[in-house]
Amino acid sequence: MTYQLNDKVKDLIPYDAVAGDYKIRLDANESFINPGTQFQEEILSAVAGIELNRYPDSKATELCRKFAAFYGVDPERVVAGNGSDELITVILGAFLRPQDKLLLFSPDFSMYQFYGVTYEKEGIVVEKNTELVLTADLAIEAIEKAKPQAVVLSNPCSPTSLVISRDDAEKIVRSTDALVIIDEAYMEFSDQSIMDLTTAYDNLIILKTCSKALGLAAIRLGFAVSSKSIINALHCVRSPYNVNGLTQAVGCVIFSHPEYIRQAAAEIKKSRDYLYQEFLKFQGENQMIRIMKPETNFLFVEMKDAELIYTELKKESIIVRRLGDFLRITAGTKEENDSLVEALGKIFRRLEE
Amino acid sequence: MTYQLNDKVKDLIPYDAVAGDYKIRLDANESFINPGTQFQEEILSAVAGIELNRYPDSKATELCRKFAAFYGVDPERVVAGNGSDELITVILGAFLRPQDKLLLFSPDFSMYQFYGVTYEKEGIVVEKNTELVLTADLAIEAIEKAKPQAVVLSNPCSPTSLVISRDDAEKIVRSTDALVIIDEAYMEFSDQSIMDLTTAYDNLIILKTCSKALGLAAIRLGFAVSSKSIINALHCVRSPYNVNGLTQAVGCVIFSHPEYIRQAAAEIKKSRDYLYQEFLKFQGENQMIRIMKPETNFLFVEMKDAELIYTELKKESIIVRRLGDFLRITAGTKEENDSLVEALGKIFRRLEE
Repeated sequence: MTYQLNDKVKDLIPYDAVAGDYKIRLDANESFINPGTQFQEEILSAVAGIELNRYPDSKATELCRKFAAFYGVDPERVVAGNGSDELITVILGAFLRPQDKLLLFSPDFSMYQFYGVTYEKEGIVVEKNTELVLTADLAIEAIEKAKPQAVVLSNPCSPTSLVISRDDAEKIVRSTDALVIIDEAYMEFSDQSIMDLTTAYDNLIILKTCSKALGLAAIRLGFAVSSKSIINALHCVRSPYNVNGLTQAVGCVIFSHPEYIRQAAAEIKKSRDYLYQEFLKFQGENQMIRIMKPETNFLFVEMKDAELIYTELKKESIIVRRLGDFLRITAGTKEENDSLVEALGKIFRRLEE
Repeated sequence: MTYQLNDKVKDLIPYDAVAGDYKIRLDANESFINPGTQFQEEILSAVAGIELNRYPDSKATELCRKFAAFYGVDPERVVAGNGSDELITVILGAFLRPQDKLLLFSPDFSMYQFYGVTYEKEGIVVEKNTELVLTADLAIEAIEKAKPQAVVLSNPCSPTSLVISRDDAEKIVRSTDALVIIDEAYMEFSDQSIMDLTTAYDNLIILKTCSKALGLAAIRLGFAVSSKSIINALHCVRSPYNVNGLTQAVGCVIFSHPEYIRQAAAEIKKSRDYLYQEFLKFQGENQMIRIMKPETNFLFVEMKDAELIYTELKKESIIVRRLGDFLRITAGTKEENDSLVEALGKIFRRLEE
C-alpha cells in the first residue's frame, strides 16, 4: 500500500491552538464576558426545544433575520457560517478558480493565507508600511500591479489592532472589479464599518463573527453580508445545514438582546482602553519598542525580546500570543489586566537587574 | 461595478432542502427517535457547563475518544467534523489537486459530485449495473480504467439502500493506491463495516455521521477514521475549532450511552423491516416496479410514475424524496409507517379506478 499525500499537505503542521491550563488566557481575543451566565435560562429553554433528530433549518433563516435586524441590513443579503472560517473557505475555494490570484497584506490574519494555499490560489502578499498601516494608496497600487481576482483583509486588523477609515476602505473597494472581502470581526470595538456599502458595491463581502464582541466563540458562528447575487451563490456552494441547530438556537437568544451586545462591546472597549493606558506607562522601558493604538479588543506590542517576555509570562500562568517580535494581548477583566501589568512590571524590573 | 461570478458558480441552484410543513416527514433519512427527550437533563447540564465566550477544544479530544471507544478504534485515528459534509469538502478540496480525477458511481449520494465540481476535480461517474449494485469487479475495472486519485462511495448506499459486502469493499480498497473514501453513514443498519481495515490499508478513509442511527441530525457531527498520516493531514487542513462546543458537549453525552445507540439502531431496523414487509405486499400493483432490499433506515422503490405518487403523498401531508423514477422513503414510527402504507394503498386504488 503506497498512498501518498500530495506535496501541498504532506508536510503541514496543524494550527497551533494553544493547549495547556493557564490561570489567565489573553491569547485568543475572546470576550471576557460569558453571556451563558446572564442568559442561561433562555439558552437552556431554546436548546431543550430542539428536535435533535431533525436537520436544522438549512438557511438559518431566523438567525439571519435577527443578525440583519441588529446590523440594519436586508436579511436576504446575509448568510451564516460555521464561524467566518467556513465562509472564507467557501469563498476562496469556490468563487476563485485554481491559480486565480489572491492579494493579501502583511501582517494580517494568518488564516487567509492558509486557506489560499490549501485551495491552491496564487497568493500575493504585500507588506504594509513601516507603521504597519495599510493605506488606500498602498492597497490600490498593489491591486493595480497584481490584478488579483480577490483581495482579503481584516479591518480593524488582527494582529495589528489598527483600523482603516471608512473612506479608505471605500476607495479600495471602488478601485477594482475584483472581489474585496473585508473581515470586520472586531468592528464592534471601532466605528469604521462599511457594511452599509454592500448595497452600493457588488464586489464587496463583509465578514462578521460572533466570537469576539458577542462572547460566543464556543458556538462557532459567522456571517457574510454582500450583494444578493453573491449571497445566492454562497448559499449554493456552502454545505447544506452548515450551521447546526444548537448554534442557531443560542445565536437567536443572544441577538434577541441587542442591549447586551452593545453593553458588552462598551465594557470590553473600556477594558482595552484601560490596558492601553497602563501599557503607555511602560514606555521608556528597555523592552518596550512600540504599542499600536488599539481599535480591537487586544493590544499589539513590539518587544525587544518578545519570545523572552512570552516565556516569562507563561511562567506566571499568563498566556498571550507571540507573533515574531510582537505580542498580541487580549484585554481581559480588570483583575486579569492588573495581574498582567503587575507581572510585566516585575519581569521588566528583573530583566534590568 | 462589474463583479462577475465565475462560470462554475454563477448558475448554481441551492441544494433543495425540503421546506414546508408536513405532518409526516420521511424525506431526509433522519431517525424517528429524539435522544433529546431521554437525555434532556444530561444535555442541558452539559450545555450549561460551557464557557460560551471561549473557543472550544480545537481537536474535540474527548468527543473523539468517546467515538473511538464506541467503535473500537484508536482515538488518534479519528477526526471530527461539522457533519461528514465538512470532511468530504476538506478531503476533496485539499487532498486532491485541481483536475485530479475523482471516481464516483451512480446512483450514489449526490453531494460527492457537488463537492467534486465545486473544488474543480475531474469527476468520472460510472453507472452501477442494472440491479443498481456496485460489484467489486465493476468498481475495480472502473478504477483501472480511470486511474483516479480518489474514489468515493457510500456503503450502504444512499439512495439505493444496498450494501457491498466486507469482502467486496476490501477488494476495492486493495486494488488501488488511490484514496478510497467509504461513507458508512448508514452502517449501523447493516453489518459490513470495514472501519477496522483502516489499520491494514493506508489509503482508506471511513466517514461516519451522527445524523442517522444516533438521532443527532440537528447538531451536525461527523467523523473520519483513517491512518495516522491521513488523520494528521486532515487536522492540518480542516479549520481550527471546526466542531463547536455545543455539538461537542451533546455528542459526548450521547456517546456516553452506548446502550441507547444500539437500541435506537435496533428499533429503527425493526421499523425498516416492517415497512419493507408492508411494501412487499404492494408487489403486483401497477405502480410498483421494484423495491431494493434495504440495508439502511429507508426504502428505495421504483415507481411507474414516481412524480405522481410523490405529489399524491404530499397532498396527504406526507413528504418523501423523489429521485428520478424512484422514491426514497425513510422508515418512521409505527404510526407514520402505517399512515404511509394506508395513504399509498388509497392512492394505488384511486389510480386504478
